[in-house]
Amino acid sequence: MKFNVEATSGKARAGTLETTHSKIETPVFMPVGTRAAVKMMTSEDMEELGAEIILGNTYHLYLRPGSDLIEDLGGLHEFMSWKKSILTDSGGFQVYSLSGLNKVTDDGVWFQSHIDGSKHFIGPNESMKIQKELGSDIVMCFDECPALPCTKEKMIASLDKTHRWAKICREYELQSHQNLFGIVQGGLDLELRKFSLETLNEMNFEGLAIGGLSVGEKNEEMRQLLEDFVFQMPEEKPRYLMGVGKPLDILNAVKEGVDMFDCVLPTRNARNGQMLTSKGPMNIKNERYQRDQNPPDVNCSCKVCQRYTRAYIRHLHKVNEFTAGRLMTFHNLHFYLQMMRDIRVAIKENKFDDFYQRFYKEFNSNEF
Amino acid sequence: MKFNVEATSGKARAGTLETTHSKIETPVFMPVGTRAAVKMMTSEDMEELGAEIILGNTYHLYLRPGSDLIEDLGGLHEFMSWKKSILTDSGGFQVYSLSGLNKVTDDGVWFQSHIDGSKHFIGPNESMKIQKELGSDIVMCFDECPALPCTKEKMIASLDKTHRWAKICREYELQSHQNLFGIVQGGLDLELRKFSLETLNEMNFEGLAIGGLSVGEKNEEMRQLLEDFVFQMPEEKPRYLMGVGKPLDILNAVKEGVDMFDCVLPTRNARNGQMLTSKGPMNIKNERYQRDQNPPDVNCSCKVCQRYTRAYIRHLHKVNEFTAGRLMTFHNLHFYLQMMRDIRVAIKENKFDDFYQRFYKEFNSNEF
Repeated sequence: MKFNVEATSGKARAGTLETTHSKIETPVFMPVGTRAAVKMMTSEDMEELGAEIILGNTYHLYLRPGSDLIEDLGGLHEFMSWKKSILTDSGGFQVYSLSGLNKVTDDGVWFQSHIDGSKHFIGPNESMKIQKELGSDIVMCFDECPALPCTKEKMIASLDKTHRWAKICREYELQSHQNLFGIVQGGLDLELRKFSLETLNEMNFEGLAIGGLSVGEKNEEMRQLLEDFVFQMPEEKPRYLMGVGKPLDILNAVKEGVDMFDCVLPTRNARNGQMLTSKGPMNIKNERYQRDQNPPDVNCSCKVCQRYTRAYIRHLHKVNEFTAGRLMTFHNLHFYLQMMRDIRVAIKENKFDDFYQRFYKEFNSNEF
Repeated sequence: MKFNVEATSGKARAGTLETTHSKIETPVFMPVGTRAAVKMMTSEDMEELGAEIILGNTYHLYLRPGSDLIEDLGGLHEFMSWKKSILTDSGGFQVYSLSGLNKVTDDGVWFQSHIDGSKHFIGPNESMKIQKELGSDIVMCFDECPALPCTKEKMIASLDKTHRWAKICREYELQSHQNLFGIVQGGLDLELRKFSLETLNEMNFEGLAIGGLSVGEKNEEMRQLLEDFVFQMPEEKPRYLMGVGKPLDILNAVKEGVDMFDCVLPTRNARNGQMLTSKGPMNIKNERYQRDQNPPDVNCSCKVCQRYTRAYIRHLHKVNEFTAGRLMTFHNLHFYLQMMRDIRVAIKENKFDDFYQRFYKEFNSNEF
């Protein structure tokens, strides 16, 4: 993997990240393809949207269809016919949040499948084995992710585990095209974050992620932590803020120097009738759109906005036609990916701050 | 509207049907877009599939979003951004089959909405008004469609109503681009069918449909009726067999001289995991496809079969990803539309009988 920072604007960075499968321009948003498909989308849709990397969820794919099956069929790229890059998470976050009755030991986590209640164990070795079978381009360390707020004592014990597990992951032999990212934890405590970062730096990962944010803390707290912390991360490595976030959260994190993002928001909210526009989120269920012949976002160049009206999409959503979810998902993903492209241009022109101010103001204009 | 029979092969016909919106090659299969969308599909999908005409359901569109709303927004073509042809049914069939507590009077049908229980009345005038508001290219007469078996006495009374209503529909002034089709009823009674046909012939409709089949009778009974009846219909007008059907039913009806078809089977079955192939229907849920890296149909040229495996589609279907329904719907519609294109070529080469034998044998080979 090759990562180059090509331009900066303030602390914001524009770069390229090259894997065996694609050249990814950063800052990048990675659409979430939980179970080997981005919800409502096909692989050709993702190509059309210009995505260079998508995310797959280790926990879900391990349970169904099974990472051994995916390995037998040539790996996740081949299985879902996706030729560009894939990042897989470690499975940890879903083990804690989705499964029943999980029990954390020193070596990993025992948990019950949320599907059939069957018992499973995933620790650092198991997570690496699964991600190796999936064959993703970027592999994430298996970590512990404590919900916030969390006592300092608990956080230190958790960090110790995360760091021990990171070492085990680092020693695991992955496929030659795979790259391992470490995950900095430490909650909102800047000193613990720095301690975590130093510990991980010694292991020389291909990239570093910031985990354990957007897990219950206030938005301002997350922003402050990012402001105080991100610039201390190694400049020459990609920085990935896991599970974030809303458009303005991403914009703020880019401002602090983050390069990579993922979030289910554009896909999940689409299915609930929320479309993102340059003037903020729009709820298509609202009666005012019943006869509205404007496109969802008058400033958007996506194929949905070129062709369909708010009135039509509202009707389809109201009668529960899947086509509604498809149209809104496509638009929302375009919104995110276009926002990242625009951010990148602004950084390369060293005008990120202007862009930030303009985007922020417009997105908060509350037109809808 | 212009209809030309360009070639025949036995009783089978190949022709063109020209509306203001598109030139339709016949025999034609019309995908069903019940509520202003073919389920799982967008209008650009239907263009990509090569559909020249789709069907909309008057009953559904009348209830939601309302035909008045659609008229205000420029008609159904504009509303769903579909530039090619649209046929709308009369609403009758759904009023009888879906609504609660319907009551047929001499003038039409009182019924309760299946959505909110509200009371409505649709008769021939109301059906014409709604279809005029929708602005479809082909409008269907409002008829009564008795379930089979049905006593002769009842059928005669029903026919009388259907014919009176047909006259009212004929006298209704539609939009200038719209064309009205009469519907022959009479169940399995050849004499009644001929009587119905003669009555409708006097009203000089732009096309004629065969209604009241595939409503409870045996498949052999339908085939016999078509064999005895279709060739008696006017040669110079398009013949539409409503709501039919399975691939072999369509093949048989083409053999008797039918030009137009519609059916929810390719779209509905796709959502239930059934894909149509040249070797018969395939149930993707079957465990034997778990690691099957073949395309759904090895003989199919559609983009789904060019890219995805049975194993992948099976996985998506098993975990309830909408993408599965989308891929299978696209494939099934391609199967139907390609079958019609192949049938047309065979008729034009006057080799329909060979095609019929070959298709029949292969489709019944029970490979799956």
